Amino acid sequence: MGDPGLPKLQFAPFSSALDVGFWHELTQKKLNEYRLDEAPKDIKGYYYNGDSAGLPARLTLEFSAFDMSTPTPARCCPAVGTLYNTNTLEAFKTADKKLLLEQAANEIWESIKSGSALENPVLLNKFLLLTFADLKKYHFYYWFCYPALCLPESIPLIQRPVGLDQRFSPKQIQALERAYDDLCQTEGVTALPYFLIKYDDNMVLVSLLKHYNDFFQDQRTKITVGVYDPCNLAQYPGWPLRNFLVLTAHRWRGSFQSVEVLCFRDRTVQGARGTAHSIVFEVRLPEMAFSPDCPKAVGWEKNQKGGMGPRMVNLSECMDPKRLAESSVDLNLKLMCWRLVPTLDLDKVVSVKCLLLGAGTLGCNVARTLMGWGVRHVTFVDNAKISYSNPVRQPLYEFEDCLGGGKPKALAAADRLQKIFPGVNARGFNMSIPMPGHPVNFSSVTLEQAHRDVEQLEQLIESHDVIFLLMDTRESRWLPAVIAASKRKLVINAALGFDTFVVMRHGLKKPKQQGAGDLCPSHSVASADLLGSSLFANIPGYKLGCYFCNDVVAPGDSTRDRTLDQQCTVSRPGLAMIAGALAVELMVSVLQHPEGGYAIASSSDDRMNEPPTSLGLVPHQIRGFLSRFDNVLPVSLAFDKCTACSSKVLDQYEREGFNFLAKVFNSSHSFLEDLTGLTLLHQETQAAESSGSLVQLGGQTLQWRPTEILPLSPEEARGALTSPERLD
Amino acid sequence: MGDPGLPKLQFAPFSSALDVGFWHELTQKKLNEYRLDEAPKDIKGYYYNGDSAGLPARLTLEFSAFDMSTPTPARCCPAVGTLYNTNTLEAFKTADKKLLLEQAANEIWESIKSGSALENPVLLNKFLLLTFADLKKYHFYYWFCYPALCLPESIPLIQRPVGLDQRFSPKQIQALERAYDDLCQTEGVTALPYFLIKYDDNMVLVSLLKHYNDFFQDQRTKITVGVYDPCNLAQYPGWPLRNFLVLTAHRWRGSFQSVEVLCFRDRTVQGARGTAHSIVFEVRLPEMAFSPDCPKAVGWEKNQKGGMGPRMVNLSECMDPKRLAESSVDLNLKLMCWRLVPTLDLDKVVSVKCLLLGAGTLGCNVARTLMGWGVRHVTFVDNAKISYSNPVRQPLYEFEDCLGGGKPKALAAADRLQKIFPGVNARGFNMSIPMPGHPVNFSSVTLEQAHRDVEQLEQLIESHDVIFLLMDTRESRWLPAVIAASKRKLVINAALGFDTFVVMRHGLKKPKQQGAGDLCPSHSVASADLLGSSLFANIPGYKLGCYFCNDVVAPGDSTRDRTLDQQCTVSRPGLAMIAGALAVELMVSVLQHPEGGYAIASSSDDRMNEPPTSLGLVPHQIRGFLSRFDNVLPVSLAFDKCTACSSKVLDQYEREGFNFLAKVFNSSHSFLEDLTGLTLLHQETQAAESSGSLVQLGGQTLQWRPTEILPLSPEEARGALTSPERLD
Repeated sequence: MGDPGLPKLQFAPFSSALDVGFWHELTQKKLNEYRLDEAPKDIKGYYYNGDSAGLPARLTLEFSAFDMSTPTPARCCPAVGTLYNTNTLEAFKTADKKLLLEQAANEIWESIKSGSALENPVLLNKFLLLTFADLKKYHFYYWFCYPALCLPESIPLIQRPVGLDQRFSPKQIQALERAYDDLCQTEGVTALPYFLIKYDDNMVLVSLLKHYNDFFQDQRTKITVGVYDPCNLAQYPGWPLRNFLVLTAHRWRGSFQSVEVLCFRDRTVQGARGTAHSIVFEVRLPEMAFSPDCPKAVGWEKNQKGGMGPRMVNLSECMDPKRLAESSVDLNLKLMCWRLVPTLDLDKVVSVKCLLLGAGTLGCNVARTLMGWGVRHVTFVDNAKISYSNPVRQPLYEFEDCLGGGKPKALAAADRLQKIFPGVNARGFNMSIPMPGHPVNFSSVTLEQAHRDVEQLEQLIESHDVIFLLMDTRESRWLPAVIAASKRKLVINAALGFDTFVVMRHGLKKPKQQGAGDLCPSHSVASADLLGSSLFANIPGYKLGCYFCNDVVAPGDSTRDRTLDQQCTVSRPGLAMIAGALAVELMVSVLQHPEGGYAIASSSDDRMNEPPTSLGLVPHQIRGFLSRFDNVLPVSLAFDKCTACSSKVLDQYEREGFNFLAKVFNSSHSFLEDLTGLTLLHQETQAAESSGSLVQLGGQTLQWRPTEILPLSPEEARGALTSPERLD
Repeated sequence: MGDPGLPKLQFAPFSSALDVGFWHELTQKKLNEYRLDEAPKDIKGYYYNGDSAGLPARLTLEFSAFDMSTPTPARCCPAVGTLYNTNTLEAFKTADKKLLLEQAANEIWESIKSGSALENPVLLNKFLLLTFADLKKYHFYYWFCYPALCLPESIPLIQRPVGLDQRFSPKQIQALERAYDDLCQTEGVTALPYFLIKYDDNMVLVSLLKHYNDFFQDQRTKITVGVYDPCNLAQYPGWPLRNFLVLTAHRWRGSFQSVEVLCFRDRTVQGARGTAHSIVFEVRLPEMAFSPDCPKAVGWEKNQKGGMGPRMVNLSECMDPKRLAESSVDLNLKLMCWRLVPTLDLDKVVSVKCLLLGAGTLGCNVARTLMGWGVRHVTFVDNAKISYSNPVRQPLYEFEDCLGGGKPKALAAADRLQKIFPGVNARGFNMSIPMPGHPVNFSSVTLEQAHRDVEQLEQLIESHDVIFLLMDTRESRWLPAVIAASKRKLVINAALGFDTFVVMRHGLKKPKQQGAGDLCPSHSVASADLLGSSLFANIPGYKLGCYFCNDVVAPGDSTRDRTLDQQCTVSRPGLAMIAGALAVELMVSVLQHPEGGYAIASSSDDRMNEPPTSLGLVPHQIRGFLSRFDNVLPVSLAFDKCTACSSKVLDQYEREGFNFLAKVFNSSHSFLEDLTGLTLLHQETQAAESSGSLVQLGGQTLQWRPTEILPLSPEEARGALTSPERLD
């Protein structure tokens, strides 16, 4: 026991100061790096001995805490810590805090015993941080610990703390400051956590701990040690002194009876440096040299209520809501990567620029699904206004949007996306898409307008990565299909029947730069060739058909003479949601494939095989039959007489541009049919036509669909279009 | 030719006056009755001879025009018409108006020749109305025709029109009025379109046309006829006179040389009746008796610009927008019936009351699809608030809803439905659903709260027809599953994995009133028994399992120790849209089945068979695999040890009510497992458990799914649960 008559030294603990930047960075680390990893992480904090009176001693962790190479702020002392970030609140609550503390204390003790703490005194400034980040609510639970080894008994104060100016003359104080500064400069730092002091009336010397023996060569009954003290209290030192005193007792106790402690406090007030408020006192240390065991330790911080328990900060209210929304949306997406699909390349999805042609039932549902996938760039094209029947089926519109004749859909859809998620870059173009069989040459005005519309559409397709065809007529899909094929853009096409749908990716033509005989991209073709040795439905993306490839009539005006039920896309209300969702999921799967739109098409038969992407299959078409709750995945080849994607059409378009298009708009079916050779085909097959709706021609199964596309029956789809013998 | 020196008689044509009520009723007729029927329809209008000066002569069609038995308004003359409502604008434009006019003229001519127009002079007041109703835009195109037969030459005016008061003395006028009124009264009408007049200085007599011979017994050189005249012009008679003059010329011309016409105008000004502004003139009629051919006719109305062409009214702006929205939404639904699914019973769908337990990703998508189907009664239950990550995946919320801690989901969802469609009856309950393994007895407060929550939930389930289980934990589905099973409510359950989902209808227990041995409903069981003679998967609704039937552990607290990716339902964004849509489509299909929830479950094998409803199959479960774009339709039996729907559980619940439930909430798994016999089962099968995850017990294939349900693999689902030999 110490001297019962003497007062005992007490220490002011650290207050943990965890800055918003720290939590923000923890969030980022958790999302992008740690994910479900609960292993301890090195982090770094600092403390300062120059605070104004009244402030508690703080150990600060900020944005930079996770980068161990970040320099400590000037005139601050570093502290190294260990972060234990749990995956669940339960793990946080049930963490073995006693064990964690003991482990940390033991490390400190070992550094004292081994002498490494003399070489690197920062090892004494160790801390622990146990956290759970609830990133759905932006609630952060944490418990801070600054482990302090305890001497076997309390420490008697031989001399109570007094201000430095009561012990040192101004000259001594000045000498101390100069000596400290010189040592810092020599060491290349701006603060020293612990140091040794020798002084007399005329001089003050300071030295590093590791020079103890040289510094205190003369046998003394008392030594003086300095500690960089974050505490502001006149009667108490701060927490960093504790482990230092244990080191002092353990390493040096044999050589003196008492130790004088200078708690070095170093503030600037009104431009003048002041260290005079540092405190000095003298203690008698116990003999510890013979005990090799780690002393017991304390250090878990009390919570705001003064009890032992964790703290929680709710940052949802102080963060910028729009930024909060962005990081929340990111979170949900990144969660998919953490455990379920670690190989998912989210950037490929999030960064894709999507052009939605049609902002009706399909367009709205596609946009909603794109939002869910975190796609930030969505552009709508539509020329319709919102009517009263729309909002219940078109989930970007509300009743109010219908008033006064209705807002233009494309603009309203873009506005709505911004309301849903301010981080999205959404635009709307209220414009028409010129169509075959819808003449534009009645007056120069409409011709000019059509020219402008075509140019606008060309620019839009050029500046986007994926083009969604989501219109409600067949012929309106023609122009964008041609332009997108020419520009080698991925096209995702969706169309509805009453209870059937088709969702497909158009075949992606080979890049233009290469010769016609070249195969490309090289890796795509390589794998295609490898697999293609058996002709078993391994059709690479560049050989796939487009929406028009199965048709043997050119698109024309299908709206002129339709009854009301034909004008509306009359479909079971769930159908557009399913087709819209599948259109986006198909796009995402294709983007995940290393060959993208050139990927070999998966068919129904591939369902039992190893999937080609982390998300599964990359079919050419998904044809759905809601009445049977069934989907089939037909694959079909590009048709060399296709009115949209055949080289005859693309070549003409690329050579003649708008002049060619205007001819198509102003002509009946026959113009495109003559161009592509369909006319000849019709003549050759007139006999076959009369016999039924399915005509097999030149190894290609053709389906007569003079009106808006309706999926094949499942039997037809399962059979005809996927059988290898039908492929040329 | 007539006398070239005399001025010619001219007529003021009718203005068609088609009232908003007429168009509204046409809309209703088109939607509910005519649909795609373009056959001519009888309609009825009227005209009035009492208008103030300056008003045009109007033929009015209003709401009542379609009901031929509606009485004509007092003191108005009826006109009978034929409505030609086309299905397309094109048909409207290309209608053969010349032919229609000729047909109508011929009918008039026939009525003149046959004399039926003498018996029923209204036959002279015939009109045509050609319409096209664009019910998407509430644009109504129409062209009105009042066919007027033309005399072979123009009609010379022997005496120009003068006011009646210039021809008649006040006494004569009074006598005319009295005679006219008396004749009306005798005939039981309030207006007579045409009549005969005899007068001298002292008296005025009037008579019906059919009494011509009796009335004009004495051979005269001149007769006087009266016409009820809607025209207000001092110099011109209105249109109704035209056919009457043809009749007069054709029937009676032989007996006189000229005819005096009294255009009877009969208004009330400042309380006093006035007919003095009627006009009188005398014309010479041509001889027509020998020509049997129908004279040429005119009568198509000029449009607002004064040219020959149709008119259009845009009622979208003047109709009550909310009503407009309601009828527009109805339109889209009714369109389905017109051609595609004539047997669809929409009322069964539209009138269903849906309770959505969970207003998250699934709840929002289910609600959206219900809106599309026209369901008008939707109630949400949820206890969560909207967080920043929600709006991009939960399509009833926006960024603004997340501010300030987030609005309660259930209330915000209901509000949003109203914003989408004001005609919906949407409510939200911000309440918790007590769950097994989530104790409620820590204090009397929570116990009471749980009691209130249970009572509220019981009331809600009682007052709805279909209960959707759309929560994100397994155990929260237990209580509503029990209550709904006890109350015999149809339960639709949807749950998501990462890229898999299950959508199912719970088995619907037999009604309680009948004995345990009774089969019900009788027709359901009959068909079940008929088909059930082969055990081939013809499982009737009352034998189907619930969500918990495949589990051999009771639900408990699954949320306490889940990592972030387990807390969020981490799923491919398109998944919830697909599952939500399918949940509603499954409900609709089941509602279309005559046996509803008792319908025999369709399985994948039934896809090639004749579907049991006009909408297709009524599966028990739809298990979807987005990575393969595949769905399978497993069927599974109710499990007699089920922790939710077995009679052991339902009996206890029905007997003990909340006391039983409280025991479940406060107990671990074991309470329910002991009750149902699962504990014993576990003991008996411990050996089997260690060998793998699939345990076959008592003819029932059991699947261990201790966490939130994840669908079976397609191989498992295709195989195990649908094989007949596994069914007991």
